[in-house]
Amino acid sequence: MPKSDKSFVKEITPQSEDFSRWYIDVIRRADLMDYAPVRGCIVFKPDGYALWEACQQELDRRFKETGHRNAYFPLFIPESFFQKEKEHVEGFNPELPWVTEAGGEKLEERLAVRPTSETIIGHMYAQWIQSYRDLPVLINQWANVVRWEKRTLPFLRTSEFLWQEGHTAHATAEEAIAETEQMLNIYTDFVENFLAIPVFKGQKTPLEKFAGAVSTYSIEALMKDGKALQAATSHYLGQNFAKGFEIQFLDKDNERKYVHTTSWGISTRILGALIMVHGDDRGLALPPKIAPTQVMIIPIGPQKERERVVTHAKDLLKRISKRNIRVQMDANEDTSPGWKFNEYEMRGIPIRLEVGPRDMDAGQVVLVRRDTGDKQAIAIDKLEETVEQLLTDIQQNMYRKAKQFAEENSRIAASFTELDDIIQNQRGFVLAGWCGDNVCELTIKEKTGATSRNIPFEPPTHLQTCVVCGSEAKHSVWYAKSY
Amino acid sequence: MPKSDKSFVKEITPQSEDFSRWYIDVIRRADLMDYAPVRGCIVFKPDGYALWEACQQELDRRFKETGHRNAYFPLFIPESFFQKEKEHVEGFNPELPWVTEAGGEKLEERLAVRPTSETIIGHMYAQWIQSYRDLPVLINQWANVVRWEKRTLPFLRTSEFLWQEGHTAHATAEEAIAETEQMLNIYTDFVENFLAIPVFKGQKTPLEKFAGAVSTYSIEALMKDGKALQAATSHYLGQNFAKGFEIQFLDKDNERKYVHTTSWGISTRILGALIMVHGDDRGLALPPKIAPTQVMIIPIGPQKERERVVTHAKDLLKRISKRNIRVQMDANEDTSPGWKFNEYEMRGIPIRLEVGPRDMDAGQVVLVRRDTGDKQAIAIDKLEETVEQLLTDIQQNMYRKAKQFAEENSRIAASFTELDDIIQNQRGFVLAGWCGDNVCELTIKEKTGATSRNIPFEPPTHLQTCVVCGSEAKHSVWYAKSY
Repeated sequence: MPKSDKSFVKEITPQSEDFSRWYIDVIRRADLMDYAPVRGCIVFKPDGYALWEACQQELDRRFKETGHRNAYFPLFIPESFFQKEKEHVEGFNPELPWVTEAGGEKLEERLAVRPTSETIIGHMYAQWIQSYRDLPVLINQWANVVRWEKRTLPFLRTSEFLWQEGHTAHATAEEAIAETEQMLNIYTDFVENFLAIPVFKGQKTPLEKFAGAVSTYSIEALMKDGKALQAATSHYLGQNFAKGFEIQFLDKDNERKYVHTTSWGISTRILGALIMVHGDDRGLALPPKIAPTQVMIIPIGPQKERERVVTHAKDLLKRISKRNIRVQMDANEDTSPGWKFNEYEMRGIPIRLEVGPRDMDAGQVVLVRRDTGDKQAIAIDKLEETVEQLLTDIQQNMYRKAKQFAEENSRIAASFTELDDIIQNQRGFVLAGWCGDNVCELTIKEKTGATSRNIPFEPPTHLQTCVVCGSEAKHSVWYAKSY
Repeated sequence: MPKSDKSFVKEITPQSEDFSRWYIDVIRRADLMDYAPVRGCIVFKPDGYALWEACQQELDRRFKETGHRNAYFPLFIPESFFQKEKEHVEGFNPELPWVTEAGGEKLEERLAVRPTSETIIGHMYAQWIQSYRDLPVLINQWANVVRWEKRTLPFLRTSEFLWQEGHTAHATAEEAIAETEQMLNIYTDFVENFLAIPVFKGQKTPLEKFAGAVSTYSIEALMKDGKALQAATSHYLGQNFAKGFEIQFLDKDNERKYVHTTSWGISTRILGALIMVHGDDRGLALPPKIAPTQVMIIPIGPQKERERVVTHAKDLLKRISKRNIRVQMDANEDTSPGWKFNEYEMRGIPIRLEVGPRDMDAGQVVLVRRDTGDKQAIAIDKLEETVEQLLTDIQQNMYRKAKQFAEENSRIAASFTELDDIIQNQRGFVLAGWCGDNVCELTIKEKTGATSRNIPFEPPTHLQTCVVCGSEAKHSVWYAKSY
């Protein structure tokens, strides 16, 4: 990849100095993205796109194992389709880009560039579904979507982004709700076990749910600056879209009924979470499971020993890659070992192996962990097992550290003053009682800047009173400032 | 997948009666696509999309093995970008859809929905490339693109389609041309060996080359109705886009130079070729390498033997799938074996195994090939080897048949009358001498309806005179009616 382009970020701003600057410095320095010449859009450069490809592969396998199949629906959605579900049009209309001319002519009906595909997929399902024998329909789509956002931030909020959107139709509410829950669990498993990011699972409040959904489940993650990020959502849409698009089926009892639908998605914003949960002042830190390169071998030592060392390093590379470990070597003579150490730490590669003549003679190699910085000499005859074991350890340790951080930054507020104090001075997640009234939720948003993240399925405690109005709490809700 | 939806195509029109109707009948009956409610767009249904996924996987592996990496560039291209390469804007302007409003406001500059990405990628490369050390840049993108076509046909020509577009930049013309050739060879290998479709390799005439290219190489395939289809193209763009977008680098000799770029692509139209090269009056016929299901097991026999037979069939399924053969079983009792035989033949599954009680007792199973219709009894203790061997045979046989058809339908014309006669009465590819003048090429197009497909790198013979003007021929050119 282009090398001379990187000079524009000389040093990475420390997180404590300016977290937002740190984030931008890291993603540019690690060559993950570039700004595009279109408002709010980015280019996913190869090192950034490789992370998304790894996510796609993992998710796609999980979707297929649970009976889903991929399909592809059109990018353009006729304007009239948005009118068929009232909440949906209100939610998305302000963000839509419109194609008004094509092929040299003005179009009779404007076409929206899809912000999400419930409407066009609903239209198709109405034609595909006739009988209970056609159900369930379990389809997923990998696609680009566009939402004309006012404030954008690379990966986290861009005008165009990449995602997958699952869309299913079922005979009963129970089945559709079970699907909604299953997909949230799949996202949880993926985010926690593959990306090493602990999540807060729960249900969105009515104000924060998807436009057109009966209920939205979400997983939320905590970034290192104390802000929350919605990592994935799964929606039970009830019969809302079925009624808007007339998706009916003849049931076993010979009655025509509306189907129950769901939709669920995760997008490239998850890459932002990956960076902001694990990264530090030295740069990116990638959990071994997603790291495109898990081990980087760097030959060191004086020029006269070089040939012998590089030959030996190549041999180690072969041995390690036989274990299906993603390993590379940098034997470039134009850059110093010190430069390489910094460079690959900055790029977040989990393990570095330093191969030099003295260690070679002693039958060992120096291994450095990205997550702890620990340096240790490894016996060469145990190299493969040690590296394999350490990759597992690093993955677990990164999850454990993130989990500990999330726990330390999840607090309970008994009053509005306490809630406000935590939000302003400590950040993180705050659990507070809520009466269920939109007004109280909006008051918190307005006065503290925090929004409700979700209502946990298993709250750490059941709070008794609403922190705003003091009446009986129906739910305990997680609040946080968020991306 | 929805079953009741398929009833709309009762029978498949024979190819000899109406090839176009046959094509539409097959793709709808086999549930590959549906028409979308947006002009010229289709929905790729799961059985159709699975074929594209198989192509993606095969191609992506080949691209990565040759050093290319994936990236993602924006969907929208500012209008001004199209002005920077003169031929390019003239070629694509008539087909562009324009976003003129977004987020509730009229845009200051219209945004085209990308028909191809040379311009926006050129803009980015100008920033990424500074020195010879940054070269070559070898990037590929999997994406959707839109061209507002007047006449559309599912898979073959749709307003929105899916493709990959490779974009590379090199220090010298030689390197860029070598890349252009390498990618044409990769496409050839993929199309011939994976899809079992023989191709005609060559260079496009100036009139037919890509808008903005110095030279375009193509592979062309012959459909069963005698029409040609451009299967993939690889373009040497020279310094045209480098000059339009100021992509310069400082070379080893300390001089600033323009890079040489290439682009190359293959799209979902290849699925149309797959269907029209191998399909017959019974429906689809899929080469084993791309078939999502390679073997379908169907238990048969009387009800009282059913349990024993199904248990046995399950055992065979396990044995076969251990060899990494994609095998499924249909033990549904609501449909008859006869219905299933027809259904899976129509869906193009290469091998059918009929498992019944009598064969079971005789230690055998009946195997039916989709490509020849041959039926044979196979000894169960040789089942895995036989199936494995037959899948290889079927793949080769399908290629051989298609190759024979292409050879029988490639003819040489010594005069314009001969050319016209073959095009009107026999179809297929016709090789004819060409002086190199656009006027002669246009005359053939106008008078015969055939277009130049390409100038073969290795023509079967070197023709001496231009069939239109009679002057000396510079090239021998393949002409054909085409999709």
